[in-house]
Amino acid sequence: MPIANFNFYNPTRVIFGTNTICELDKYLPKDKIFILCYGAGSIKKNGVYGQVVKALGSRKHEEFGGIEPNPDYDTLMKCVDKCKQIGLDKVYILSVGGGSTADGCKFICAAACYTDGEPYEMLFNNAINVKKALPLAVVLTLPATGSESNKNSVISYRKMNRKQMITNEYLFPEIAILDPNTMISLPLSQIQNGVVDAFVHICEQYVTVLQDADCQDRYCEGILMTLVKNGAKIIKDKNDYVARSNIMWAANQALNTLVGQGVPQDWATHYIGHELTANLDLDHGQTLALVQPRLFELKIENKKDKLALLGEKVFGIKESSVLESAKKTIIAIENFYNNVLGVKTRISQLSCSQDKSWIEPLIERLKKDNIKWGEHGDITYVEVKEIINRCY
Amino acid sequence: MPIANFNFYNPTRVIFGTNTICELDKYLPKDKIFILCYGAGSIKKNGVYGQVVKALGSRKHEEFGGIEPNPDYDTLMKCVDKCKQIGLDKVYILSVGGGSTADGCKFICAAACYTDGEPYEMLFNNAINVKKALPLAVVLTLPATGSESNKNSVISYRKMNRKQMITNEYLFPEIAILDPNTMISLPLSQIQNGVVDAFVHICEQYVTVLQDADCQDRYCEGILMTLVKNGAKIIKDKNDYVARSNIMWAANQALNTLVGQGVPQDWATHYIGHELTANLDLDHGQTLALVQPRLFELKIENKKDKLALLGEKVFGIKESSVLESAKKTIIAIENFYNNVLGVKTRISQLSCSQDKSWIEPLIERLKKDNIKWGEHGDITYVEVKEIINRCY
Repeated sequence: MPIANFNFYNPTRVIFGTNTICELDKYLPKDKIFILCYGAGSIKKNGVYGQVVKALGSRKHEEFGGIEPNPDYDTLMKCVDKCKQIGLDKVYILSVGGGSTADGCKFICAAACYTDGEPYEMLFNNAINVKKALPLAVVLTLPATGSESNKNSVISYRKMNRKQMITNEYLFPEIAILDPNTMISLPLSQIQNGVVDAFVHICEQYVTVLQDADCQDRYCEGILMTLVKNGAKIIKDKNDYVARSNIMWAANQALNTLVGQGVPQDWATHYIGHELTANLDLDHGQTLALVQPRLFELKIENKKDKLALLGEKVFGIKESSVLESAKKTIIAIENFYNNVLGVKTRISQLSCSQDKSWIEPLIERLKKDNIKWGEHGDITYVEVKEIINRCY
Repeated sequence: MPIANFNFYNPTRVIFGTNTICELDKYLPKDKIFILCYGAGSIKKNGVYGQVVKALGSRKHEEFGGIEPNPDYDTLMKCVDKCKQIGLDKVYILSVGGGSTADGCKFICAAACYTDGEPYEMLFNNAINVKKALPLAVVLTLPATGSESNKNSVISYRKMNRKQMITNEYLFPEIAILDPNTMISLPLSQIQNGVVDAFVHICEQYVTVLQDADCQDRYCEGILMTLVKNGAKIIKDKNDYVARSNIMWAANQALNTLVGQGVPQDWATHYIGHELTANLDLDHGQTLALVQPRLFELKIENKKDKLALLGEKVFGIKESSVLESAKKTIIAIENFYNNVLGVKTRISQLSCSQDKSWIEPLIERLKKDNIKWGEHGDITYVEVKEIINRCY
């Protein structure tokens, strides 16, 4: 099967490297009022905040802190109000943080300009009515989601226990600053989860069916090799700049959407992971490490060719049959999460609630929505229930 | 050595796949006058012209044919005059052809808006004064240069026997259409040379020194593997859509500048190749196949680590020493050009002029210009003379 037709567009300027936050000064307009958006405030302790403010120089800026992991609709709408008070034609949003802050800011940019109804509607119609958004620059401090240079945003709507992704070309940041030095002060768990997130992003675009898309396949294998090699290194030494820079670039590349052009994709691990986050309040990367091995085991017949290829290229696995190679590959991936990165792969190993009463209502909703996930559209509510139960 | 700081920006929308020329209609403005630029006119025989005109629909358009391979300054300036007659605010340039047509159109777009002096000056100051250009869309018919989605343009100024590259962000096309079906009617030699061109583009960004830029290295190896595999296939069967589509995408990726971010580069093969084109009137890809093996042989000490890595990953070469592997790799590359693609690697095998009187004046100029090419800056006029003499 040849490369399918595609339309690739990614206008975000990526400025990468050590001490690059100051480059904002070259590219940001002088006449806007910047809203510096951030999360819990770690940027004020690790020096990033100071570098951003210095880069802004004499430009006017305000602040909006408290964007939580898995950014919440209600939190973000407070910033939308702030934008409107300042005046939409004057505001430029500056996201300083990880993927959650970036995702939240993308939503703020679109919601502020949304005139078609209540902004939460965007979450349930994939933002199809978005025709305008505020300008946005991202200073990334945690490599993981690739959100800094793509058109996606994942927003939690806790009132309804929902976590939804939206995609729209107006969501591309104008500028993304990737300085691997910003990672030094990160808690280890965020680095671990970030590597898992990037690894799974590639798998969602690669572990489907065999296809004759050679560049795409080699790119995916190359990014996975980079994550495996440098993931092991960074766990041993967070100060290793080589490891940090390779992970930061690999995580960006894993979801700037280039590697998935013209190939089948299967985002079921993410969709199920989002439900685990919404219901068990788990980190995004953590949920992926729980779901992915179980989904691969259940769907090994569909995915065995690509799993075997991944195993051969990334882990050097070469068994006597494709199926055996695929099985060994799933074990190798789980081993990478568990024993190399130190990320648990069973809910029962975690300190979160072990109560399972959330599963039935979710499955009822998925049944009602008649979901058909996976590259073959054969991951229905039945398979999701099975996968979630196997995650314990 | 870690990834060096970089600034990556590429806003061209790439629309890839079968029967995609019609997509122009979605993205081109309605109120412009399009100048449909092309080369010798093969697009009028192979159906591409008809598809473009159909996509333009009721939009006004004019034509400018005759852009030659290695597009010439004087030819292009005729189109600049045409643009000015129509009115610069009204014109949209539409390049329909291969890399030469695209390069020529990029120059037209910049030269039409150039107010700092005579446009030929751009060729000798790398277009640093370009601050504006006409909008441009490219319908690609020959994968090779990557020009359809980068900011480079190579222009010949035959009056002075010069071939110069310019680079400027205003040269990015807005849209690039890559339909692998457009390749079917190409002469075999153009496909052969196109694969060589893409292969050498990657080498210029990869065969330098070892560096800890893992994604970049794996990307380069992946594109080379794609070219080797599909190059062999397309020579056997030009109708193989899988081979055509993989080559078209690989050639685009080889010089959209992504894979070379933050790594040392050595464009000496191209620089020397440009001189061969300017003086011997050889196809661009042909000149690269002549120069590259000789340059690698001369600079094997500098490049042996990367050559050995390339050999291992792309050709499965694993000798007892790095130097031996590097030597075998050069032989494998030359074999790929000669025996797989059928591209000659010695000037003496070609039907061009065998007169060598052009070499001394060139070397005198390079001596005067005090050139220092290569990743170590140690390819001077002395080495260029040696390499050119070895090309015979």
